[in-house]
Amino acid sequence: MGAVRQVKVAVLGAGSWGTTVASLAARNVDTVLWARDAAVVEEINDKHQNSRYLAGFALPRRLRATTSLEEAVYNADVLVTGIPSHGMRQVLSDCRDFVRPWIPIISLTKGLEQGTRLRMTQVIDELLPGHPTGLLAGPNLATEIMAGYAAAAVIALPDEQVAASLQTVFASPRFRVYTNTDVVGCELGGALKNVIAIAAGMGTGLGVGDNTRAMVITRGLAELTRLGEALGGDPRTFAGLTGLGDLMATCMSPYSRNRMVGEKLALGMTTEQIVAEMNMVAEGIKTSSVVVELAEELGVPVPICQEVHGVLHLGRSPVQAYRGLRRTAATSEIDGLA
Amino acid sequence: MGAVRQVKVAVLGAGSWGTTVASLAARNVDTVLWARDAAVVEEINDKHQNSRYLAGFALPRRLRATTSLEEAVYNADVLVTGIPSHGMRQVLSDCRDFVRPWIPIISLTKGLEQGTRLRMTQVIDELLPGHPTGLLAGPNLATEIMAGYAAAAVIALPDEQVAASLQTVFASPRFRVYTNTDVVGCELGGALKNVIAIAAGMGTGLGVGDNTRAMVITRGLAELTRLGEALGGDPRTFAGLTGLGDLMATCMSPYSRNRMVGEKLALGMTTEQIVAEMNMVAEGIKTSSVVVELAEELGVPVPICQEVHGVLHLGRSPVQAYRGLRRTAATSEIDGLA
Repeated sequence: MGAVRQVKVAVLGAGSWGTTVASLAARNVDTVLWARDAAVVEEINDKHQNSRYLAGFALPRRLRATTSLEEAVYNADVLVTGIPSHGMRQVLSDCRDFVRPWIPIISLTKGLEQGTRLRMTQVIDELLPGHPTGLLAGPNLATEIMAGYAAAAVIALPDEQVAASLQTVFASPRFRVYTNTDVVGCELGGALKNVIAIAAGMGTGLGVGDNTRAMVITRGLAELTRLGEALGGDPRTFAGLTGLGDLMATCMSPYSRNRMVGEKLALGMTTEQIVAEMNMVAEGIKTSSVVVELAEELGVPVPICQEVHGVLHLGRSPVQAYRGLRRTAATSEIDGLA
Repeated sequence: MGAVRQVKVAVLGAGSWGTTVASLAARNVDTVLWARDAAVVEEINDKHQNSRYLAGFALPRRLRATTSLEEAVYNADVLVTGIPSHGMRQVLSDCRDFVRPWIPIISLTKGLEQGTRLRMTQVIDELLPGHPTGLLAGPNLATEIMAGYAAAAVIALPDEQVAASLQTVFASPRFRVYTNTDVVGCELGGALKNVIAIAAGMGTGLGVGDNTRAMVITRGLAELTRLGEALGGDPRTFAGLTGLGDLMATCMSPYSRNRMVGEKLALGMTTEQIVAEMNMVAEGIKTSSVVVELAEELGVPVPICQEVHGVLHLGRSPVQAYRGLRRTAATSEIDGLA
């Protein structure tokens, strides 16, 4: 890895993951975090805390926050976007006039844009063309990383050299960063796993047992790989940290938002009630609809995503969904549909 | 699938999984279970229970048990072996004179033979040549299946037709059976995942967090796939129910023996103490040594298995092992070594 010239990093979005990544970067290089909310910015600057999203954790004193997009972005050598998918386009458009040319733009968002069905790096390419775009993703629960547990992530960019140079911006002895040039695969893995995590959460809520949960996750990975490959990803990527790894962390952890959505659905809550109650965005809710549309267009069978979509948006019950999943005829494991 | 002529099944070995598979088969066809221990046989026949290995579960009344290998095997149309890897050779040799020609022989054992390093179906082929040999495997916790939770498994045989005809012997509405013709891949996945499960268990015991556990499992799957492919398995198989699926059920479930071994190692117990205390065989303990030997011979890097082997057999501490795993340099995700 070796030394790097000091670069300046701007992170857009002070949610739990944006704040965590900004904290990781701030330990290595000059880092500024942009948030819309003045109270959040003030708390980060004055108390070195973000009590709304990361209650109880001390942020690095070197991390500065601002409500000014211009101030955040103007001097940045690396731009990191941690905005939920539904807000990404607007924020990017707002900072278009300030972003330096050529600098890499790294997405943290694991979702697909509704309507356009674009991946986040595609949205970035559309609004800020001419930049190397990629993402940082993997099995990363924000609170565990803030608590100092070891973890690993992937920095995915089309150019291996650029990816390697960004490793040192985020890495630490307890946060290993791998590189991968398959941006499409890494990005889709992160987005699609949220839908499978909702299915796994429903299973937990229904008390289906570890066998069935392991089956749903395994067949879910097969589904995600099938669709991801049809969309241009490398099948090996989906078996890696940004696909399987992230899927597993999400499905094992009691803190995952998307898993929690599934558990609440199993308890009989509606999608509207769950969304109204949540402090944070569970990207899988919207992604499920996009996935079902894409899969239909491409003729790729996605029975698990379809059941999740059915429960979230068409009023099916979680019990019906699990019955549906079990009914799918068991055929050849590799060629079979579910 | 359709109807099948009634076949007779013999299951050798009344451990928890042998008894469970015999119970599944007994619901479909005439089934006899062989056990060495007369008390176990008597309890199964008289009380329809196996309190040593499946305490609290009622077995099907139709399931008969016997201590006579000849009686069990003589009329069997399908022979199922649920003997631990270290005892397999002897039992097969003992029943050589009684087994009908041509009948399929299905292994339930997820281990490699020490010394010879053979897979169980290879041991079967050596001792009982001329039979179609395969296995039944997947993410299957015996107690969950006995409790009626839904699950899925794979029946792997070189001939798709034979595999399909055996689906109906074991399947039920709550136990889906897929087919796969990649016997090598299915068998290696089941054997190798036990070693990774020990690593995951050590992580749980050390309190490393879900991020790190997900990382160990994901990199463990990569390791298992690399070695399995070098040994002739289809890489897609390792991402399926017998590889990833089984690995996940094992790592998630508090009841998995191999995971438990890892947790006890993390508490400071020695391998000898753990083995002495256990009622059942944890195949991963012996498999770890075979894996390290094979990997060295083939030049395949298996850092996680090596650390597990080091703790089990060379006196390294779990803390050292985890430190070792974290130290491995993070490089390209797909080409990298760990």
